[in-house]
Amino acid sequence: MNTTIAVKEKIFDVNDRIAAENREIINNAGIYAINIMASPGAGKTSLIEYMVGELSSRRQILVIDGDLATSLDADRASAAGAQAYQINTGGQCHLDAVMLRDAFKYVNFDKIEFLIVENVGNLVCPIDFQLGTHHNIMVASIPEGDDKPYKYPGSYQGIDALVVNKIDLLPYISFKMDYFLNGVRALNPDVPIFHISCKTGEGMDEWIKWIDKQIEIHKQN
Amino acid sequence: MNTTIAVKEKIFDVNDRIAAENREIINNAGIYAINIMASPGAGKTSLIEYMVGELSSRRQILVIDGDLATSLDADRASAAGAQAYQINTGGQCHLDAVMLRDAFKYVNFDKIEFLIVENVGNLVCPIDFQLGTHHNIMVASIPEGDDKPYKYPGSYQGIDALVVNKIDLLPYISFKMDYFLNGVRALNPDVPIFHISCKTGEGMDEWIKWIDKQIEIHKQN
Repeated sequence: MNTTIAVKEKIFDVNDRIAAENREIINNAGIYAINIMASPGAGKTSLIEYMVGELSSRRQILVIDGDLATSLDADRASAAGAQAYQINTGGQCHLDAVMLRDAFKYVNFDKIEFLIVENVGNLVCPIDFQLGTHHNIMVASIPEGDDKPYKYPGSYQGIDALVVNKIDLLPYISFKMDYFLNGVRALNPDVPIFHISCKTGEGMDEWIKWIDKQIEIHKQN
Repeated sequence: MNTTIAVKEKIFDVNDRIAAENREIINNAGIYAINIMASPGAGKTSLIEYMVGELSSRRQILVIDGDLATSLDADRASAAGAQAYQINTGGQCHLDAVMLRDAFKYVNFDKIEFLIVENVGNLVCPIDFQLGTHHNIMVASIPEGDDKPYKYPGSYQGIDALVVNKIDLLPYISFKMDYFLNGVRALNPDVPIFHISCKTGEGMDEWIKWIDKQIEIHKQN
């Protein structure tokens, strides 16, 4: 198994190097970039649709979608008003920096201010591969249950903002918010947390304001 | 990257060999064994609790739980009335046959008729690693959305039964059942499908009957 470990380390080294190159490209273009991660069906694509709908009248947005198969997500982002590009990972359980760099060849950065990368739906693997984006954003979802920070600590530890989606379902589901938040805070004490519903729009103002502020900050740099 | 591919192939070969050994151990003991897979929070543990609650008065059940961290799931299976053993994968995104074989050293097969293996919550990686169980069972969940068979085809292709959980949430969620089922049938035309709610108990009779029949079949072999 030592060969496996050596190969893995090499993969991580290469990934980190390419991620640094991606970051430089993004910074030079004055773009704010996020990497959105979540379990399958937590609402990544719905969140992206909402953001594009709210921001695209005043911000140029590029969405790069990662999926095992289909272009369903990129189609939704595109319909919402963003430039969108789909990466099909061909079975790979996460995006990596090389895939993102390859996607950069096919997109047009001209006037883009905000890059949203949607990762493969997976609460385990994506967090291990930095892409070069500025922030890792996790979308949690009420129906997933309140024990997820305890059972998937890596993904909660390595994020820069947490969006808790589907709060409109709280009346129908047994979800102890205190237990959930205690789990998050134990792993990531200062992470900003946004409670939202993509369906009803509840909590969205605060989230959009936060994102818009980040775009402004990274534009000035 | 050729080294990586060669190492991967070697890993799959070793896994398949150990899976065959696991199957022999299980068969010799007259045990029916299933491998339950799903996204995080689809309801694997709730389904196991329900099965143990319904069956443990007349069937001896062993639950082997796989998680990145904690023994929360094994604790729940144990409280419901099964013998339970927790595997912590230490970050690995799936169980493999070697982990299951190692767990076998710590459990007592005496009188066991039904082995439930709960995999790591992940819709991508677990399906690639056979464990030696008789059936792969997938738990889908209404709040995950109706597009999952299209976006995660591998996991829907490689299963022997599909349990669609949380149907009690259908009134509150936009979920096109026809679209979902067409996606499943295109990948896996004959897979038995059970529509259930672990919360209300709806549809559970049929599922428990199917499982009980499988236990009986494998006992006689």
